[in-house]
Amino acid sequence: MIITMKKDAPESEIQAIIGNLTDMGLKVTVIQGSDYNVFGVVGDTTRVDEKIIAANPHVDHVSRVAAPFKKANRLFHPQDTIVDVGGVKIGGKEKVVIMAGPCSIEGEEPTQAIAKAVKEAGARLLRGGAYKPRTSPYAFQGLGTEGIQCMVKAKEVFGLPIVSELMSENKLAEFEEYVDLIQVGARNMQNFELLNALGKSSKPVLLKRGLSNTMEEWIMAAEYIMAGGNENVIMCERGIRTFEKYTRNTLDLSVIPIIKTKTHLPIVIDPSHATGDSKLVESMSLAAIAAGADGLIIETHNNPKCAWSDGAQCVTPEELKELIEKGRKIAQVIGRDI
Amino acid sequence: MIITMKKDAPESEIQAIIGNLTDMGLKVTVIQGSDYNVFGVVGDTTRVDEKIIAANPHVDHVSRVAAPFKKANRLFHPQDTIVDVGGVKIGGKEKVVIMAGPCSIEGEEPTQAIAKAVKEAGARLLRGGAYKPRTSPYAFQGLGTEGIQCMVKAKEVFGLPIVSELMSENKLAEFEEYVDLIQVGARNMQNFELLNALGKSSKPVLLKRGLSNTMEEWIMAAEYIMAGGNENVIMCERGIRTFEKYTRNTLDLSVIPIIKTKTHLPIVIDPSHATGDSKLVESMSLAAIAAGADGLIIETHNNPKCAWSDGAQCVTPEELKELIEKGRKIAQVIGRDI
Amino acid sequence: MIITMKKDAPESEIQAIIGNLTDMGLKVTVIQGSDYNVFGVVGDTTRVDEKIIAANPHVDHVSRVAAPFKKANRLFHPQDTIVDVGGVKIGGKEKVVIMAGPCSIEGEEPTQAIAKAVKEAGARLLRGGAYKPRTSPYAFQGLGTEGIQCMVKAKEVFGLPIVSELMSENKLAEFEEYVDLIQVGARNMQNFELLNALGKSSKPVLLKRGLSNTMEEWIMAAEYIMAGGNENVIMCERGIRTFEKYTRNTLDLSVIPIIKTKTHLPIVIDPSHATGDSKLVESMSLAAIAAGADGLIIETHNNPKCAWSDGAQCVTPEELKELIEKGRKIAQVIGRDI
Amino acid sequence: MIITMKKDAPESEIQAIIGNLTDMGLKVTVIQGSDYNVFGVVGDTTRVDEKIIAANPHVDHVSRVAAPFKKANRLFHPQDTIVDVGGVKIGGKEKVVIMAGPCSIEGEEPTQAIAKAVKEAGARLLRGGAYKPRTSPYAFQGLGTEGIQCMVKAKEVFGLPIVSELMSENKLAEFEEYVDLIQVGARNMQNFELLNALGKSSKPVLLKRGLSNTMEEWIMAAEYIMAGGNENVIMCERGIRTFEKYTRNTLDLSVIPIIKTKTHLPIVIDPSHATGDSKLVESMSLAAIAAGADGLIIETHNNPKCAWSDGAQCVTPEELKELIEKGRKIAQVIGRDI
Repeated sequence: MIITMKKDAPESEIQAIIGNLTDMGLKVTVIQGSDYNVFGVVGDTTRVDEKIIAANPHVDHVSRVAAPFKKANRLFHPQDTIVDVGGVKIGGKEKVVIMAGPCSIEGEEPTQAIAKAVKEAGARLLRGGAYKPRTSPYAFQGLGTEGIQCMVKAKEVFGLPIVSELMSENKLAEFEEYVDLIQVGARNMQNFELLNALGKSSKPVLLKRGLSNTMEEWIMAAEYIMAGGNENVIMCERGIRTFEKYTRNTLDLSVIPIIKTKTHLPIVIDPSHATGDSKLVESMSLAAIAAGADGLIIETHNNPKCAWSDGAQCVTPEELKELIEKGRKIAQVIGRDI
Repeated sequence: MIITMKKDAPESEIQAIIGNLTDMGLKVTVIQGSDYNVFGVVGDTTRVDEKIIAANPHVDHVSRVAAPFKKANRLFHPQDTIVDVGGVKIGGKEKVVIMAGPCSIEGEEPTQAIAKAVKEAGARLLRGGAYKPRTSPYAFQGLGTEGIQCMVKAKEVFGLPIVSELMSENKLAEFEEYVDLIQVGARNMQNFELLNALGKSSKPVLLKRGLSNTMEEWIMAAEYIMAGGNENVIMCERGIRTFEKYTRNTLDLSVIPIIKTKTHLPIVIDPSHATGDSKLVESMSLAAIAAGADGLIIETHNNPKCAWSDGAQCVTPEELKELIEKGRKIAQVIGRDI
Repeated sequence: MIITMKKDAPESEIQAIIGNLTDMGLKVTVIQGSDYNVFGVVGDTTRVDEKIIAANPHVDHVSRVAAPFKKANRLFHPQDTIVDVGGVKIGGKEKVVIMAGPCSIEGEEPTQAIAKAVKEAGARLLRGGAYKPRTSPYAFQGLGTEGIQCMVKAKEVFGLPIVSELMSENKLAEFEEYVDLIQVGARNMQNFELLNALGKSSKPVLLKRGLSNTMEEWIMAAEYIMAGGNENVIMCERGIRTFEKYTRNTLDLSVIPIIKTKTHLPIVIDPSHATGDSKLVESMSLAAIAAGADGLIIETHNNPKCAWSDGAQCVTPEELKELIEKGRKIAQVIGRDI
Repeated sequence: MIITMKKDAPESEIQAIIGNLTDMGLKVTVIQGSDYNVFGVVGDTTRVDEKIIAANPHVDHVSRVAAPFKKANRLFHPQDTIVDVGGVKIGGKEKVVIMAGPCSIEGEEPTQAIAKAVKEAGARLLRGGAYKPRTSPYAFQGLGTEGIQCMVKAKEVFGLPIVSELMSENKLAEFEEYVDLIQVGARNMQNFELLNALGKSSKPVLLKRGLSNTMEEWIMAAEYIMAGGNENVIMCERGIRTFEKYTRNTLDLSVIPIIKTKTHLPIVIDPSHATGDSKLVESMSLAAIAAGADGLIIETHNNPKCAWSDGAQCVTPEELKELIEKGRKIAQVIGRDI
């Protein structure tokens, strides 16, 4: 941690800050500059609150050298974490995992049909929304428990583990019982009560990046879950909010090499929500695989025109199949498979 | 609602869309263009899901003419909503209300001291955090129930109604009993489970804008609470996330005239979180009053250097008093008072 | 074009607007809504200035149905434009073209060395900066004419056509004589005097996207050059500015399918400036190829540690070679080659 | 300057970096951390190119303590710069200066009329566009020299100094002769050739902030002009690009106290371009004055409905007058005047 103090700071203030830091077991080195004095602070600084130091009117600036996360940090955990989702392994050099299914679960029969279709296309997890976060209170909010049960029945027949979004810690018991991979949506990435509850869960978590959260904040959200005891976290990029209007969000594929360098966690890409446009899904999926993604989560529907929500971004099972076939060849170029 | 269809859309698809819309009681007018056909749809379109229409591959684009919100819409509710918070009126031509107090409640004695100081400076509500959303799981998370009780005791002595942040619907009963104005933080602006719970509450809500939410999404979050039956919503701008690095967030004061035009709800400004820097609080507060804000929420601490969190953005009670005195004169220029 | 008028607009204003539009040869259809009246305007609306219409206080909103660009529009020019740069063809189904070389030209000998190295690695154009846009007036500003001549000499030996950045129309004559592909930098994307000058040039232009320009504004910048008579424009994405701090910019690969759909122009990706980090260049390059890019422009240096500028983002010729070999296999998966 | 090196950096690399820096007359202090080694570098670091240091693969991170600007820096120039524009003083404790006039100059007669009207309303400079940067090549590009002459004639009659936008260094001679305050538009803020030319000019410069430039980049653009010898620079905020859709740009008023703290230059606000909506101009103007702005530049037109460009954001002379009257009273609250 680097603390920059104004040149005219009184000696008593300087000594007070140094005293506080050395009391915390940290080592402080002073560098006298021409316009500022700079202090280097060495030791475990994750518990130092830089805002308190910055509050001192004689302090100009505080910055961190070490990352503020530990459990998720590749530096202290060099080997890849491989997460087991109902028998499907995600991360490391495992096969790239395709998760597919509709945005909203629409009933038992359509769920069986889409599960069959995505399995045949090569998907290995079934995605589906039962509880839906919707911007408008007047929009369809999902089938809830009925939707979860539709997926459970499809799993009984086709054997695909289930991934679905949890919107409140009050439904965690239901998800613990029926869902294989619990998704935290972008809008809840910093719902800390929900993250704390998931830290106590035994089920793996798919943690979507908030629509305008930095990668560091996103890793800190994973750190919340891991600090609670649940180390099975999979990161998921779904596009960030920018000024661009031709796409719903801007897909940031640089997260793939960066999450793999800064952390040991798997990284999955959601090209459907990122672009909001089914015509962009194939090219962004292939790009994600080429960049080293551990998985893709792709909205798929038998009849995108009639989907109950987000139809514009759905691909058909036929398009999914073709995408997976091309994706497999690209994965092989970089030493992976699908 | 305007639907733009590609020129080569088959007649059967066009008729199917028109049929669906007229079945919903809407009126459709067709405009034949050279490269596109455009349909104007008239009637109550808030229940039409534009994503389903956009999913049709023959549709190029869908846009709304009417706003997607109704309860919050000034068009259907021309008079200002004035919210009563424990006897303090906010909105319309009422006095500009100053809410002040520490970021984190730190115990009974300091809460009494700061309540006394901000009351003397001219504040009319006591703000304080008992449950704290923190980016790091290793940072201080607030005193919880103990913190709420410290504020209740200060209210007994000084009579200032309390505003504090609720992070989960599971604590709503506690807030209903003890808190006068329930704050929804920026990170929870689209925590729809929380918004739904607040829709059933009898207490007024201070709804902060999410750090990268559009004003329309923010109004839609208010609409969630109002659609549930609770019409006492106060909007609160606390800065948005941009590329700028000299401020923590970018304070968007244009929300003041816009929220007042699009809705009938009061609008409050939080210059402390917006800037993250106590040296910017006075100028941004005066600017907010000049632009017509109905209130300000300002972090205030007797000893900002030692604040348990966010000290860098705290002003002292003396600074608050001076700010209020200047602010009063500015309010009078535009026909208000403090 | 869709014009939304407030319900209480006087009939005389409505008739005045309709009259103005019909005088311009446009056809107007009126749709009576409950809260607004909507006018659909059909015909060549590229010459209608929507700001003038929006200025009318009775007008609520104006939006376009048709894109504001014509020369660049795929709708009116369905076949791919293939640009010939000194004999190297870029676009359509041509081979993916690699442009490589240093950020700043550093002298005759190093330019010869790097030209040799990148040619052997598989690059087909030599990039190099002679005139450098630098944020600080105290930073190295490039060798200027001497730098251009170093590249010309390398071209004489190794035969690679040259791409370099032009910062002012006053140097256009020099570039016309010596440079094969004239680069417009991100900061000059809306330097309209420069774009107008290039519209009169016979040399192809590599048009970088501005750091926070929408794709539509970027296409409109191409339209400036094309409207002037020069149709040899290649689009180049180099990352956009967002809130993220782990990368210098956010690389937006969705431009690849979108530019190919909206326009007929080739699209090239610059992973070096986008990420600012040589460790991210390979994965982002492979992703770009998988998504269908027509070319890559990659900063390459024999000794990145000592580069005169932007060394952090340079790869070595060995890294470039490996990247091209993997990239070739990925290109072949999607029916291209390098 | 703080250099963070990875723990496993070989001693030879460390010594090489230290050697290079000490050769430049800088003093280096080493702090041994547990996971990193940190070097503090003291002296005049404005000429050190951090990118070159960051290029070393053993370096993790480089950050600056001192600001990269000197001429504009308040630290080395504590007193306010007051710029004289044709006899009108801007900055310090001088009166807040109102600059008003049309977006585009439309001819001799309308220019006389608007100059008369804005002078009567209380404006002290006449603004007007003769050379117009337009997103579309098909839009009206301004009257050019004819437009400048219209303003010169209005100045002869009404005595208001002229501010107008220069788009290319090739027109500088014309502006030097006829224009009192040369505006650099947002799109040209980093047109370094133009900035260099203005550094040699004797006329004051109004430097608009680029639509997504940080304040530091903006100050560095001023530094370019000042480093060339022209210290009469006035900063002008005109809104930044964000995700928000209800305003054209987001007006960032925090620039007012920050520019005044970091630099000694005057700061002017443009509420017209920032919001793009005449209905927001008054409230944002009053807010700017309350926050301490040294001037406002406001688009004003006798008949906004018929303005040749940007009519939607024009106020009438009557609205301007009312705004100035309210603004005067607000200025007096904070110890200024208009």
